[in-house]
Amino acid sequence: MKERPIRKKQNRTQTIRSQREMWKPGNMLYPVPAVMVSCGCPGERPNIITVAWAGTICSDPPMLSISVRKERYSYGLIQDSGEFVVNLVNRGLVFAADFCGVRSGRDVDKFADLKLEPLPSCHVAPPGIAQSPVSLECRVARQIPLGSHDLFLADIVGVSVDGRYLDKNGRFCLNRCGLAAYSHGEYFALGERLGSFGYSVRKDGKPRK
Amino acid sequence: MKERPIRKKQNRTQTIRSQREMWKPGNMLYPVPAVMVSCGCPGERPNIITVAWAGTICSDPPMLSISVRKERYSYGLIQDSGEFVVNLVNRGLVFAADFCGVRSGRDVDKFADLKLEPLPSCHVAPPGIAQSPVSLECRVARQIPLGSHDLFLADIVGVSVDGRYLDKNGRFCLNRCGLAAYSHGEYFALGERLGSFGYSVRKDGKPRK
Repeated sequence: MKERPIRKKQNRTQTIRSQREMWKPGNMLYPVPAVMVSCGCPGERPNIITVAWAGTICSDPPMLSISVRKERYSYGLIQDSGEFVVNLVNRGLVFAADFCGVRSGRDVDKFADLKLEPLPSCHVAPPGIAQSPVSLECRVARQIPLGSHDLFLADIVGVSVDGRYLDKNGRFCLNRCGLAAYSHGEYFALGERLGSFGYSVRKDGKPRK
Repeated sequence: MKERPIRKKQNRTQTIRSQREMWKPGNMLYPVPAVMVSCGCPGERPNIITVAWAGTICSDPPMLSISVRKERYSYGLIQDSGEFVVNLVNRGLVFAADFCGVRSGRDVDKFADLKLEPLPSCHVAPPGIAQSPVSLECRVARQIPLGSHDLFLADIVGVSVDGRYLDKNGRFCLNRCGLAAYSHGEYFALGERLGSFGYSVRKDGKPRK
């Protein structure tokens, strides 16, 4: 959508549109949480699949969704058991998360190969990953085929956190876990803190401490 | 789930589980992309709502979802028009994104108050935000009530990007836009690059340049 050529000394407000390019419709919604989803049926070897299309979908009741391709090994495990665990990824787990995104559980035992410790869950059969700072135990509420991916809507039925990130008041400090984000083919640590929720309307205009 | 007390000189592998705490089921899936969703019916003043429960749900066809509370002003606008635009948030837009998450379009004209420029869309009626590096034009495919939030599944029907982030080969460099992430009440810039997709199985074990 080029309206006029970009001038060297430009008036930003007036020429923003002139720099706009139309693009093929595609997936450009970033950064996202690349999470390690552990799954499996009771009595069988559990597997881990890294899922970048994942997110919260409802606050009350707490629900999240993950999207999984039909041809993935974990697709059948999640469909058959109706359960899975979403494990957040921090700096120390990025290598393992990447590996679990490109290798198949048909060929490798990911827990063993990556020296990840299965963490018994409280409310679902599949184990979480003990090295992850937060594990969300989930039960599938609905499965919706969309095309390349099926969308699994799930209730969060249990949460376990790494107690090392509790402060002295018992508050869980998620942002001290070193969470990683995935954006357009790359993994990043979270960097500079830019503000806190609601800071734009607080009297002092400053982020909360 | 305390199995045994934490010892001072601990064997990490064996005591990881001992530090685990069970938590009330809740929304702990972070970091997420807090996006500015512009919406509105033709001929009416467009509005912007910041949505943290948003994500890609299908690669082919490209689809995303956003979750919106029924009581929000934008809920009716999206439901009635069946269209919206997801605008990615970078460092320069964090203040505006926060403001659009806590103030209602019933009370304020967010485009005017925040000096945001409406960007005419190509495929839908609501405008995008010209200052955003990426605007995803969306058409609602399905609306699913879940509880506090309704989930809107949408097709991405058009994408416009800020041409300043195209490299000399015409490749769009999303990770040069300064994207922001939202995590557990705080906004962050993306920081250190930890790897690129597939680096864990590449021969040299190194991220792509």
